[in-house]
Amino acid sequence: MRDVAVIGVGWPKWGELWKKDIRNIFVEAALMAIEDAGVDHIDSMYVASMSPGLWSKQEHIGALMADYLGQTPIPAVRVESACASGGMAVRLGFIEVASGMSDIVLVGGVEKMWTGEDFTAVLATAADQEYEAFHGLTFPALYALMARRHMHEFGTKREQLAMVSVKNHANGARNPRAQYQREITVEAVLNSPPVADPLNLLDCSPVTDGAAAIILAPVDLARKIAKDRPIVQIIGSGAATDSIALADRESYVELPAVKKAAEIAYKMAGVGPEDIDLAEVHDCFTIAEIIVTEDLGFFEKGKGGEAVEQGLTKIGGKIPVNTSGGLKSKGHPVGATGVAQIVEITEQLWGVSGERQVEGAKIGLAQNMGGSGASSTVHILKRID
Amino acid sequence: MRDVAVIGVGWPKWGELWKKDIRNIFVEAALMAIEDAGVDHIDSMYVASMSPGLWSKQEHIGALMADYLGQTPIPAVRVESACASGGMAVRLGFIEVASGMSDIVLVGGVEKMWTGEDFTAVLATAADQEYEAFHGLTFPALYALMARRHMHEFGTKREQLAMVSVKNHANGARNPRAQYQREITVEAVLNSPPVADPLNLLDCSPVTDGAAAIILAPVDLARKIAKDRPIVQIIGSGAATDSIALADRESYVELPAVKKAAEIAYKMAGVGPEDIDLAEVHDCFTIAEIIVTEDLGFFEKGKGGEAVEQGLTKIGGKIPVNTSGGLKSKGHPVGATGVAQIVEITEQLWGVSGERQVEGAKIGLAQNMGGSGASSTVHILKRID
Repeated sequence: MRDVAVIGVGWPKWGELWKKDIRNIFVEAALMAIEDAGVDHIDSMYVASMSPGLWSKQEHIGALMADYLGQTPIPAVRVESACASGGMAVRLGFIEVASGMSDIVLVGGVEKMWTGEDFTAVLATAADQEYEAFHGLTFPALYALMARRHMHEFGTKREQLAMVSVKNHANGARNPRAQYQREITVEAVLNSPPVADPLNLLDCSPVTDGAAAIILAPVDLARKIAKDRPIVQIIGSGAATDSIALADRESYVELPAVKKAAEIAYKMAGVGPEDIDLAEVHDCFTIAEIIVTEDLGFFEKGKGGEAVEQGLTKIGGKIPVNTSGGLKSKGHPVGATGVAQIVEITEQLWGVSGERQVEGAKIGLAQNMGGSGASSTVHILKRID
Repeated sequence: MRDVAVIGVGWPKWGELWKKDIRNIFVEAALMAIEDAGVDHIDSMYVASMSPGLWSKQEHIGALMADYLGQTPIPAVRVESACASGGMAVRLGFIEVASGMSDIVLVGGVEKMWTGEDFTAVLATAADQEYEAFHGLTFPALYALMARRHMHEFGTKREQLAMVSVKNHANGARNPRAQYQREITVEAVLNSPPVADPLNLLDCSPVTDGAAAIILAPVDLARKIAKDRPIVQIIGSGAATDSIALADRESYVELPAVKKAAEIAYKMAGVGPEDIDLAEVHDCFTIAEIIVTEDLGFFEKGKGGEAVEQGLTKIGGKIPVNTSGGLKSKGHPVGATGVAQIVEITEQLWGVSGERQVEGAKIGLAQNMGGSGASSTVHILKRID
């Protein structure tokens, strides 16, 4: 397998983009990535998106986007793994370049969620429709069950959940692409309207329109066309699945798909959690970030809440988590999320993250997740000199 | 890149499967393929499906199927390219095995279409929703435009379109998995109800529930675990895209994505159209088979209709096409179609196709297509001894 680098990134502003349809949103990000990479063509492309069919009545968006990007007749395909669609698409683009099948591959993710459809009903199609959604279990409810159990087993405090949101908003306030660029307080989280006890509105990631894109190429080619910035290589790629229904799990306080994807990625990369300088993780709800940082091996099981309280996951802390603002502050356009994580890590390793820069960052990790943890991907990126 | 073989296939009966939901339908095919291959595990899986979100209100079916198949925590992802979803998934599975990332990969396709949803509206999401579907253009109408133009430019006769259907039903009558296992006549096609002039009901592929699956592995491994049957290698894999809207094409009588995908696959395989012993092609409408057999290079442009009339595409003819019965007779459960094509070709090359067997078949081709030709894949398989 060939070594693979990220050679370009594109991430336009996210939010409620009422004046743009799904094709405009995607193409803007894709063109930005192509221009950033400085390439004059791409060989193949992946389009990650969870549910353009339900939100925009448009399937077949691989070909649609290749068409609107002016890149036909290259191969283009849509990849879907619910909220992990972006991470899964990165994995497939990585494999295609590593295999030698293609040299320059665009991986983009997009979701157009503000179309008038019922968000909760569409998002529930990522759960087990027959055994969860039909019976009224929504995603806030599923994660609320995990939160309640984590509090029960480990004494995790309600305020510690809120602190995840506060930290991520502090980071997002410094990210010009974020949907909500403002700081919030623990009190604001605790006083926000309840959604599914113990989770309040400000524990939940928002509904967002947006896209992000990256360009992958073999490291050898990257060295030839690299701009005045270091080469960032994907040194580990792991993906795993778990039962789609939460009720089928042995535990509500750990996510086996995250642990397995991390195990694969760490092994491929030849590094461990102690080597990671920063991470983007899937904080669809505040409790998710706490559980995931434990399952990635950054903290002991049950200690994720304390770690946030002690500031270990802040910029400047032991292991900065979600310097982008996370899903909570920067937004969560489902199919785009996993790709934007790679953009954030790549920029951090290039050293161009401005106010959010993690000094001396050399190895970063991105963890993306679908449903209540039925799918997860973990990618590890390294600045190579 | 490593050489890749098809080591197992699964294809249960297709039809209106009112008593089975999407997960039952997929798992049945997947288990059949695993058993046929004789493997005790799989390393990764792809699930091709066009629109489980609109038909069954269920996205995230990669993880769902891994779960119901008892194969978690392996990576599993859904692939979508409208009616070419199956072919695209085969391409990605091929790349994953070729790359060395995984050894044993399951590629399955599934569509559950009989759920009470409006078929025409769901299928129209494979067209350009904003510039075609919203304005009333349906798929029968798009292909009717192509048929009318082909008749105008080349003198293709209405009866020749009907003969495609008659031939495919003759083949499907001998395929125990086919939805409609009965022969029909030219008169029956001509007298069937009009759908979009000049296409009648019996020019159109039906609405079908079904799944198909294959197991891919490196040729080296295939040699070790092969049963008492020849090794079938995928020697060429091509994919291409074109404008999603028919109105943006220069011609209505050729399909550039088919030509490009074929060019790539022929080049990789080191063979030409004259070397192909049989082909499965995407006859979603009778006119499609005629245009595709021209664009694959089997016949001169404009001569596809005559070729059918002369019996060149029958079993026993110059180049048997759609020995399975094609989409027309065996059914077209969208996401499964491209995978079932590979099953049919593999079985033909193994020499186990019974009444439908093409004697001495050594090289077969499968062409799958999405929308009105915005996506196409071409795979070439060879029996190696």
